[in-house]
Amino acid sequence: MAGSTRSVVVLAGGVGGSRLVAGLAAVLDPDQLTVVVNTGDDFEHLGVWIQPDVDTVLYRLAGVQHPEHGWGRADATWAVMDAVADLDGPTWFRLGDQDLATSLLRSQWRHDGVPLGEIVTRLADRLGVAPTVLPMSEDVVATRIHTVDGADLAFQDWFVAHRAEPPVASLEFRGADVATAAPGVVEAIARADLVLLAPSNPFLSIDPIRAIDDIRDALHHRSGPTVAVSPIVGGRALKGPAAQLLADFGLEVSAVGVADHLGDLLTGFVLDEVDADRVADVTRRGMQAWATDTVMVDASAQRRLATWLLDTVGPEPS
Amino acid sequence: MAGSTRSVVVLAGGVGGSRLVAGLAAVLDPDQLTVVVNTGDDFEHLGVWIQPDVDTVLYRLAGVQHPEHGWGRADATWAVMDAVADLDGPTWFRLGDQDLATSLLRSQWRHDGVPLGEIVTRLADRLGVAPTVLPMSEDVVATRIHTVDGADLAFQDWFVAHRAEPPVASLEFRGADVATAAPGVVEAIARADLVLLAPSNPFLSIDPIRAIDDIRDALHHRSGPTVAVSPIVGGRALKGPAAQLLADFGLEVSAVGVADHLGDLLTGFVLDEVDADRVADVTRRGMQAWATDTVMVDASAQRRLATWLLDTVGPEPS
Repeated sequence: MAGSTRSVVVLAGGVGGSRLVAGLAAVLDPDQLTVVVNTGDDFEHLGVWIQPDVDTVLYRLAGVQHPEHGWGRADATWAVMDAVADLDGPTWFRLGDQDLATSLLRSQWRHDGVPLGEIVTRLADRLGVAPTVLPMSEDVVATRIHTVDGADLAFQDWFVAHRAEPPVASLEFRGADVATAAPGVVEAIARADLVLLAPSNPFLSIDPIRAIDDIRDALHHRSGPTVAVSPIVGGRALKGPAAQLLADFGLEVSAVGVADHLGDLLTGFVLDEVDADRVADVTRRGMQAWATDTVMVDASAQRRLATWLLDTVGPEPS
Repeated sequence: MAGSTRSVVVLAGGVGGSRLVAGLAAVLDPDQLTVVVNTGDDFEHLGVWIQPDVDTVLYRLAGVQHPEHGWGRADATWAVMDAVADLDGPTWFRLGDQDLATSLLRSQWRHDGVPLGEIVTRLADRLGVAPTVLPMSEDVVATRIHTVDGADLAFQDWFVAHRAEPPVASLEFRGADVATAAPGVVEAIARADLVLLAPSNPFLSIDPIRAIDDIRDALHHRSGPTVAVSPIVGGRALKGPAAQLLADFGLEVSAVGVADHLGDLLTGFVLDEVDADRVADVTRRGMQAWATDTVMVDASAQRRLATWLLDTVGPEPS
């Protein structure tokens, strides 16, 4: 075990988050790692309950994630989507047959009244995933996009059907005000030696998690380090609309803009090495800052970053 | 158009019913044929709303039905079921990828509040089915099996998971007492020159339909012929548990037992030619009776029986 970090909680969204989680899973014992996953992107489609970020994290940890796509499985086939298309059904959200199987099981259990945390645990078990993966909440929290044109769009409608193009006026995490953390989340954060915010979209993946009162409280009241890895490298998002949202919200389109947004939640912030000249700008905002190679091009890079984080940003050896 | 039969309503279940319907569709204009389909077998599985009899009728009329199996499509693939099995999910009900696409669209529309009759119409349109296909009701009517051992089983649980083996004490059509006919059903029955009861299971396919008050009333108050085709040939059911249920209910395991069960609903009854010696036994029960080759081994046999019925059992030429 690197440094003195014995237990780690990662707050994660989909693709970028899942890569860091996979790196940590490769160098930590399973009982040292808890992942709290955004569920604000969840939605019902074709009557099926879909959790894109949960599945992306589970698939990556199970080693069945598509190696290039940001979503879906390596073994994906498309028989159902093809048949839906033959019936002139909606095809804007492409769900592979194996993804659909996961979502059908989830839907069945949900109809049976199984709590969402237990559902994620069952799927993790059946996929052979050893670390603890928790949804942020068992309550429905729905990310809504309010566009500058006045439209109120469901997240997937904006992100997939509208290709994340309509400029955003504000985000709403509908239901977050009455949602509570899923069982285990607050406890894991309270006892963690290190909380990491994965290089996921700060607005769409991290903000829904911290919009839940008892999670926000647990993050603020803990004493150990809480460190984010920037999803913005050299002024651009590695994936998805993070840079665009920084601009829409009038923030600097850079790692520093992300540090500004995540603000007082953090004790530390990791920039990519290409942004090393901005470390001092982040330090000036009252947190520790480091620069390293954060771009996880493959499993080896995932492990390297995970090891570096555990060695560098965790609590001081006692 | 054969004889003077201008409009036909068929009450149908799945396999046997769909074969007769296909034969009638081949010799009638689409606007002359209305099919009223049993929905008592409908159920929710993996969170998806499945209508086995409706789909069997639609697939047969669309020409995509598996030529040998009693259910499913000729082009069936099994990617989702294989993936569900990989996740240790339930596989007792095998739903092909293309069947699943149909059921997903139905589930989506149902969640959107589209009435069930409109859903069936949309699926028929998209499958290129021209005759009118109506569910018996838009209300949920669930066939329940009360076994002699005191169990209360959902139909698919008894039929598929228990392979129709537990002896049956009684059937219940749960919800039928408060259900009403789907839009168009009563009107079609009232104006039909001929109502046919397809050679479907009289207990599991026909009884749920006539358990609905306004359908039963419409059948009793019409003046034209109402004629059943026996699903029992030579003392055996061509498919499914009809013979077993006749025995469980203490009826004669023969076409005559079926005529007894359907009773005063009928003005006429068609036996298979192998049972021609029982025609007089049926006539004695106060209805017309005929014998002909009723076994529909292929599309040609379907057409032959349909033509024979229209020529023989319809109203007298005026």
